[in-house]
Amino acid sequence: MTLDDSSLQKFGFIKRETLGSINIDPLQTGGLLTGAAKQALVEWGDGYSVCDFCGGVLDLVKKPPIHDFVHKALPEFLGCDEARVTNGARESKFAVMHSMGKPGDWVVLDGLAHYSSYVAAERAGLNIEVVPHAGSPEYHLDPGRYGKAIEEVTKENGKPPVLALVTYPDGSYGNIPDAAKIASVCHEYDVPLLLNGAYSVGRMPVSAKEIGADFIVGSGHKSMAASGPVGVLGVSEEYAPVVFRKSVHNKVKEIELLGCTARGATVMTLMASFPEVVKRTRNWDQEVENARWFSSRLEGMGFIQRGQKPHSHDLMFFEAPGFYEISQKVKNGRYFLYRELKERNIHGIKSGLTKYFKLSTFGLGKEKLGTVADAFEDILKKYENI
Amino acid sequence: MTLDDSSLQKFGFIKRETLGSINIDPLQTGGLLTGAAKQALVEWGDGYSVCDFCGGVLDLVKKPPIHDFVHKALPEFLGCDEARVTNGARESKFAVMHSMGKPGDWVVLDGLAHYSSYVAAERAGLNIEVVPHAGSPEYHLDPGRYGKAIEEVTKENGKPPVLALVTYPDGSYGNIPDAAKIASVCHEYDVPLLLNGAYSVGRMPVSAKEIGADFIVGSGHKSMAASGPVGVLGVSEEYAPVVFRKSVHNKVKEIELLGCTARGATVMTLMASFPEVVKRTRNWDQEVENARWFSSRLEGMGFIQRGQKPHSHDLMFFEAPGFYEISQKVKNGRYFLYRELKERNIHGIKSGLTKYFKLSTFGLGKEKLGTVADAFEDILKKYENI
Repeated sequence: MTLDDSSLQKFGFIKRETLGSINIDPLQTGGLLTGAAKQALVEWGDGYSVCDFCGGVLDLVKKPPIHDFVHKALPEFLGCDEARVTNGARESKFAVMHSMGKPGDWVVLDGLAHYSSYVAAERAGLNIEVVPHAGSPEYHLDPGRYGKAIEEVTKENGKPPVLALVTYPDGSYGNIPDAAKIASVCHEYDVPLLLNGAYSVGRMPVSAKEIGADFIVGSGHKSMAASGPVGVLGVSEEYAPVVFRKSVHNKVKEIELLGCTARGATVMTLMASFPEVVKRTRNWDQEVENARWFSSRLEGMGFIQRGQKPHSHDLMFFEAPGFYEISQKVKNGRYFLYRELKERNIHGIKSGLTKYFKLSTFGLGKEKLGTVADAFEDILKKYENI
Repeated sequence: MTLDDSSLQKFGFIKRETLGSINIDPLQTGGLLTGAAKQALVEWGDGYSVCDFCGGVLDLVKKPPIHDFVHKALPEFLGCDEARVTNGARESKFAVMHSMGKPGDWVVLDGLAHYSSYVAAERAGLNIEVVPHAGSPEYHLDPGRYGKAIEEVTKENGKPPVLALVTYPDGSYGNIPDAAKIASVCHEYDVPLLLNGAYSVGRMPVSAKEIGADFIVGSGHKSMAASGPVGVLGVSEEYAPVVFRKSVHNKVKEIELLGCTARGATVMTLMASFPEVVKRTRNWDQEVENARWFSSRLEGMGFIQRGQKPHSHDLMFFEAPGFYEISQKVKNGRYFLYRELKERNIHGIKSGLTKYFKLSTFGLGKEKLGTVADAFEDILKKYENI
């Protein structure tokens, strides 16, 4: 590509087509900026704006109050001893895996783990033992199976895995596993547990200490109303010196953070949304009630909600035989649902999906959820005689 | 910290005190957002907004045109075969080092390398051999010394270093080393070269191919008018399969990128500013002229510019005996300069520094640079009879 005026004009400012739609994509519902974060975004948008106030260590910046956010508020919020802001949940997971293991070591992942947990382990050179789930329809994870997985790794390799991970909840079915029981099983074998809370931290109450997890990971853009990429990492006192070990070349810089992480609009939006995020987690019962209500409306249309039932999270997976039948009959069938929803200003079910899809009800409230459920009914009715 | 209303109110929206000042901090001058980027920031600020348009691979998103940006525009701009968007220059460097070497291997760094190059090598478990510079006042880097460093590593360890790195320019003196000669020296020993262009890519014309570098790294927030953290990484055809190798667990995801990197406001601001960034690099001669003019004004005040002379970059290091003398005489002397500049709405020389400091003239133009030089003169005059 020659970089002339004509080819360059395709870049520059680009409209975001989905802006203003009702968005039920699980990736998006927890990441919508609050009013304060929108203001912070504009104020702190330039480059690495926060560095104007830094004496060399991001998390020690006093004003803006990043120090108090990272060292006081976040540990309290996450229920951990030490916390840091990272470039994302996956970056947090990699930092832990890369600190705890060396190439050839083993990590135990739950069968519903996010792909980025696999890729983080792979990048760290770790072998993976998977704790299987029970399959359809509930995809239940039996905490006792962690013990079996740990025993198998130990038997095969002469030493236990360096880490176990549980996804809380997973990103496919929104299942909340019995993490406290899993922690207790892992600790029987002296294996530390990482809680991947990309879909919980910032949406619902969650505490590493109450669960007994040694590490907790959250996602700013997925669930903490922050502009991405940004994440959080909480670590217990025992492992903080390992994960947050400092460079021999520069004594204030932490190796796993490559010295510094989010030091512009990302951390400032995370911090700006934090008061509202703390408050919304206290409203979690209402969110669960909304999710169940929405699920029951869809089941009334003949859809089947997979995963835990009754459900305890806004992320849900549905089988929609009604939509699938329509897709078999109409022209370019796979895409009819996406088109119909787009016409109704609803976004978030991936283009081409009709039989199975996931969605999130988080933060939408009954009225918008009603609009979505009505739209689904409307679409079913529109095609009922086709 | 109890997370009650009273403690939470310190977070939320926070004003940025330096906004609107003349900022001569080298970290900031190249990261100011363009008008298009400011618009993009607001439009794409929510969480991971770009994911609405993604089929699973960020750099293949067609609309917005991330695919064309990453696979057509960036390779042309960087002079490389393959490019990616990363979470920052340091993350780009770590990805290369972690791909090219294994723990215990060696990397060669120039004596003016940024601390993050050291930390990235340390995180990858690599040993570091430093190519010394010639010291004050020019801090010259002799390309031939790369050969000596490579030979020493090979002699001591039985095999050559897996990578050499050159900082182009360095972040202390703004020296532009003879990177083409360094590349040619390294290639005589079959050692690939990484060009750290955090202060060049987006400010001045730079091409990995013209220099002969195998890797090129740039910083979106430092030098490409983007909201951080975001960076770019260019790789030659030869090493692209190594650095961009894919996961065995998920065949479309690249391991070193942990699957995905910048997929919100960061990549969208990078792309929004790109047309103007391309154009500003064509105005580099004027920027160098401005830097030299500013340097000569300061030398007229008895300051001494360290590093290459005549200088060829906006980042410059000064020794300021006049300011230092004042600091020895006034109360709380170290801080007088910061205070005096703050009163004049000038930011960017670190609080407490008077004798030695660095600054950047990039993008300020003659008028603002004149204001800064006048302010320096004014301050010297104010204290001349103290």
